[in-house]
Amino acid sequence: MQRFALLGAGFIGSVHARNLAVNPRVSLDKVFDVVPERGRALADQVGATAVASVEEALTDVDAVFIASSTDTHAVNLRAAVDAGVAALCEKPIDLSLDRAREIVAYAQEHGARVMVNFNRRFDPDHAELKRIVDEGGVGSVELVQLTSRGPVVPPLDYVKVSGGQMRDQTVHFFDLARWIAGADPVEVFAAGSALAEPRLADFGDVDTSVCVLKLPDGALVQIDNNRRTGYGYDERIEVLGSTGLVESKRHRVHQVSHYQAGSVTDSRMPDGWFERMQPTYALALEHLVGLLEDDAPIQPDLTDGLKAQAIAEAATRSLNTGRSEPIVY
Amino acid sequence: MQRFALLGAGFIGSVHARNLAVNPRVSLDKVFDVVPERGRALADQVGATAVASVEEALTDVDAVFIASSTDTHAVNLRAAVDAGVAALCEKPIDLSLDRAREIVAYAQEHGARVMVNFNRRFDPDHAELKRIVDEGGVGSVELVQLTSRGPVVPPLDYVKVSGGQMRDQTVHFFDLARWIAGADPVEVFAAGSALAEPRLADFGDVDTSVCVLKLPDGALVQIDNNRRTGYGYDERIEVLGSTGLVESKRHRVHQVSHYQAGSVTDSRMPDGWFERMQPTYALALEHLVGLLEDDAPIQPDLTDGLKAQAIAEAATRSLNTGRSEPIVY
Amino acid sequence: MQRFALLGAGFIGSVHARNLAVNPRVSLDKVFDVVPERGRALADQVGATAVASVEEALTDVDAVFIASSTDTHAVNLRAAVDAGVAALCEKPIDLSLDRAREIVAYAQEHGARVMVNFNRRFDPDHAELKRIVDEGGVGSVELVQLTSRGPVVPPLDYVKVSGGQMRDQTVHFFDLARWIAGADPVEVFAAGSALAEPRLADFGDVDTSVCVLKLPDGALVQIDNNRRTGYGYDERIEVLGSTGLVESKRHRVHQVSHYQAGSVTDSRMPDGWFERMQPTYALALEHLVGLLEDDAPIQPDLTDGLKAQAIAEAATRSLNTGRSEPIVY
Amino acid sequence: MQRFALLGAGFIGSVHARNLAVNPRVSLDKVFDVVPERGRALADQVGATAVASVEEALTDVDAVFIASSTDTHAVNLRAAVDAGVAALCEKPIDLSLDRAREIVAYAQEHGARVMVNFNRRFDPDHAELKRIVDEGGVGSVELVQLTSRGPVVPPLDYVKVSGGQMRDQTVHFFDLARWIAGADPVEVFAAGSALAEPRLADFGDVDTSVCVLKLPDGALVQIDNNRRTGYGYDERIEVLGSTGLVESKRHRVHQVSHYQAGSVTDSRMPDGWFERMQPTYALALEHLVGLLEDDAPIQPDLTDGLKAQAIAEAATRSLNTGRSEPIVY
Repeated sequence: MQRFALLGAGFIGSVHARNLAVNPRVSLDKVFDVVPERGRALADQVGATAVASVEEALTDVDAVFIASSTDTHAVNLRAAVDAGVAALCEKPIDLSLDRAREIVAYAQEHGARVMVNFNRRFDPDHAELKRIVDEGGVGSVELVQLTSRGPVVPPLDYVKVSGGQMRDQTVHFFDLARWIAGADPVEVFAAGSALAEPRLADFGDVDTSVCVLKLPDGALVQIDNNRRTGYGYDERIEVLGSTGLVESKRHRVHQVSHYQAGSVTDSRMPDGWFERMQPTYALALEHLVGLLEDDAPIQPDLTDGLKAQAIAEAATRSLNTGRSEPIVY
Repeated sequence: MQRFALLGAGFIGSVHARNLAVNPRVSLDKVFDVVPERGRALADQVGATAVASVEEALTDVDAVFIASSTDTHAVNLRAAVDAGVAALCEKPIDLSLDRAREIVAYAQEHGARVMVNFNRRFDPDHAELKRIVDEGGVGSVELVQLTSRGPVVPPLDYVKVSGGQMRDQTVHFFDLARWIAGADPVEVFAAGSALAEPRLADFGDVDTSVCVLKLPDGALVQIDNNRRTGYGYDERIEVLGSTGLVESKRHRVHQVSHYQAGSVTDSRMPDGWFERMQPTYALALEHLVGLLEDDAPIQPDLTDGLKAQAIAEAATRSLNTGRSEPIVY
Repeated sequence: MQRFALLGAGFIGSVHARNLAVNPRVSLDKVFDVVPERGRALADQVGATAVASVEEALTDVDAVFIASSTDTHAVNLRAAVDAGVAALCEKPIDLSLDRAREIVAYAQEHGARVMVNFNRRFDPDHAELKRIVDEGGVGSVELVQLTSRGPVVPPLDYVKVSGGQMRDQTVHFFDLARWIAGADPVEVFAAGSALAEPRLADFGDVDTSVCVLKLPDGALVQIDNNRRTGYGYDERIEVLGSTGLVESKRHRVHQVSHYQAGSVTDSRMPDGWFERMQPTYALALEHLVGLLEDDAPIQPDLTDGLKAQAIAEAATRSLNTGRSEPIVY
Repeated sequence: MQRFALLGAGFIGSVHARNLAVNPRVSLDKVFDVVPERGRALADQVGATAVASVEEALTDVDAVFIASSTDTHAVNLRAAVDAGVAALCEKPIDLSLDRAREIVAYAQEHGARVMVNFNRRFDPDHAELKRIVDEGGVGSVELVQLTSRGPVVPPLDYVKVSGGQMRDQTVHFFDLARWIAGADPVEVFAAGSALAEPRLADFGDVDTSVCVLKLPDGALVQIDNNRRTGYGYDERIEVLGSTGLVESKRHRVHQVSHYQAGSVTDSRMPDGWFERMQPTYALALEHLVGLLEDDAPIQPDLTDGLKAQAIAEAATRSLNTGRSEPIVY
């Protein structure tokens, strides 16, 4: 049994708490939140103990799930390193790439075991696509296409401090691109507009964007992201290789078709990213538990986290320069 | 070049005329219709000669396409046999199974070359399904399912003289069942109701029916037919075998999907059987032309025509007896 | 919190135990199994108490989940009635329709609250289909088609005592047919063969069958069942009505397509009925818990259970007589 | 009846000849080819007269179909203008944008009626997508995605003189982008590699490329093109708007699915662009004939042809500069 502490009892913390609680290979011992009542309420629901400090949380546990607010990721990671506790950390490591590099260096010096929670890698369809690519099912990868479109622009207050679309939304797909292609892109072009929420332009952000990445061997990656669809949450991937194509397709909520005069109506798409991606959180946790049990190398690790952020930095630059920018890892 | 005459210049005759006219291996020389102006108008459109009698039509041609009214099929077939001309005959051979047997015997005695126009065998998707079955792609056939549903009940005047749903509509699928399974069913159960047009019940007919056929080895065939959908023309086949399944799927008019809040709308289905089945007529003709050029055995032949009718007879009986009826070929 | 006891700690009992354990509106207090160690092992896993008798299990609980062997359903039901405890009972109520009728009469006299576990009604796609039918999305129901095909013939020892394919497998779809159509079929025709396992014929059973049911208004229901596919578990439903069609489609395990020279490969189907139907068990339980909380009428209830069994009796008769048999409820 | 001449009796000329010959509103009177025997052979096949010069071809006809080699488009267009004959011209107008501008200016001065053969606009699925966009089915257009991937790299000799991937292949999609969005892109970024045929790099060409276009209102267009798939010809479009999405999907040759252990195999894709796009040629011709009959404004016209070429110029520049280039119309 891996003994876990959980830091953060907000929305995503609650999701993780339930997954930790029902996983038979895990015991969720402690929950900490900066708002004590919130921590207590969640701890009660899942049969854990609410604790009063991060330090207390990190005592007598094997691993910590860092689901606290973004600005506390780095300090909590450092505490985990110091306590010699493995960690599963929500992305990003830190909104500042420099601070992120610092804490990663510190963690690596101390041989810390940290997984960055790129949960999409554990989506069963994306994983099946990856398996087919890795088995050579499409030959050598030549063009990767990633689409992710969300149903509603998040609240402006959130978007303002999120670092912008590249760092907040596209970063997930920069990671998927690296993971699928098995290589680090060398340059990135990005173009975007504030179409769904024109006020985003006031602070230099966009909500509809396209990125083009180039890999060392000339292979290309296309990513399109948008923050407001009229039809739910939309995510798909396709990988074109030298001998074939593999596609992880759009999801529908039901497998039901309704035939009427003039049209056939199929099921709606998932309402939002959470409805679509919820199962991946338990699968990501399961993956980490397996690695901890086997004392195996952790991945996706902090370096993966840093690299996705480095691509996001270059993409953010490109939005302004209008040219393909080199990526500095 | 196979020189053709065409008997019948009605709706389906016109379809055949155009296919004969554009086929580079065919010359459509003559057109006959009992209404001379109709024959003349069609002949003019396709660059053929309108003739005044069946006898004239059958002179100096290699083959005749019998697309005249059902009650003239048998007499026109006999004329073709006597003239030593190959024939492509619309089904049924004759509404009376006894008369049909007579003319078939006559044709066979004289070694006539006659194809019965079971055009659905030439649908590219059904043919692909058949190819997969024949290559052993599903193992031995155990259950065949055939669905055909039409958009509107034909005019009552037509239905009254059509011989009933089994003889008029289901007969096509009795043929497909034999063709796919490669065996002659030994008994048939049929159940039906007049749901779309209750007045059909007045003359003992139905518009919504289900048939179950048993093959000599115990394999089963399910057929459902209906004469009024609310959503267009609907046809599908599936063949379940000992190792797999193959399906010839419903058609949509466009490969277009429209995603909106709450639903995804795909293209409508074909409006009617003609929109769905139109390409099969040229393909059936092409098939016969190849057989004539190669002097190869004709199929589907008159025996195929008779057998499908024999199943329809037994099915019609079953509608009344409520029991599985033996099929007498 | 609804306090539950569980009778039966076999495969399906274990599934129910886990669903009971993680449902926040339920407390699973007691587990009983005729093999005490088995009961204890399961009780330990889910934090319940293993008890030594059915009587003990039925003390101080609100409801009992009867997942014991089929031959004990009736006696356990009677015990639940006597204890004044609500019940969720696996089907069938009893293999003998007469004994089933007796216990149902007894339960009804005593006002017992019993749900029969027709779990397929709770499949999200089937439920969505039902919602569309109930909202008038297809007009009046005219033809229902139900397909269920299993990957492997169960062990002969099991099949021998199962009552035959109609009572064991098709009974689920007799229930779905009644539920979807909202009416009780008046007659049923069945045809079947032992194609996958010819030894089934030795004791009069079949593994590949087709049923045709007639509803009071003339609407028809087609059911095809088979016990050995080469491609996994296959279930689909379609409902043709006077204005449209609705279809609950085949499931694929992944939404992944692989394009290669000559073909496009999509995901395999679910391995077995359990992989396909697993989510329905928790949903059925959830449904019952809601009814218990609201003190609402139970459905599907014992009458539903009896009626599905009555159809299975008539269908079994029809397999032998070759004619459409009246159904006696 | 519109009297047509055809210039060019090569592969695509033959396709056009057959479409002209079977169209009942057209009479194909004359065929010219620089290789007289080739012109004669085609003329014989379709019942037209082979003529010895362009001038002769342009006498006593209403319209000319210019399907001669690319380097003769401009001179043949000028001849058509001088003869006062309408024209349907294969793209490009001329490989040199300057020369193309000259001949377009000349044609416009003389009020010539010329359609540029952007046949993809007439694909029934693309046209259905356009209809939905125009009816407001997706709200305002925000992101257009166009994919076109060919099965084999054309012969190097052809590619060398084709002007490069942007001018030869992508130009079709630059036109579709303008047509769908109803606006002229203001800048374009392109990235590409020679992955399928590395020798393309020797003369500065690519075979795998991604373009990103920006429209005046900030909407974005993504185009990916490739010249060698392992799985046939692949084309799709999707249009994301403020309220929804519409997609013109990949085509399969058959609507047949084959279920076996471990996978479900669907039909292959079309072998090549011609198999996929063949029907569009007759539809494009039909469209022009309608415009000529109605004396209606021609579209897509020479300006459409020029604009697509202007985008291709800027895209070709961007391949070298690595930045988003302004488009000069």
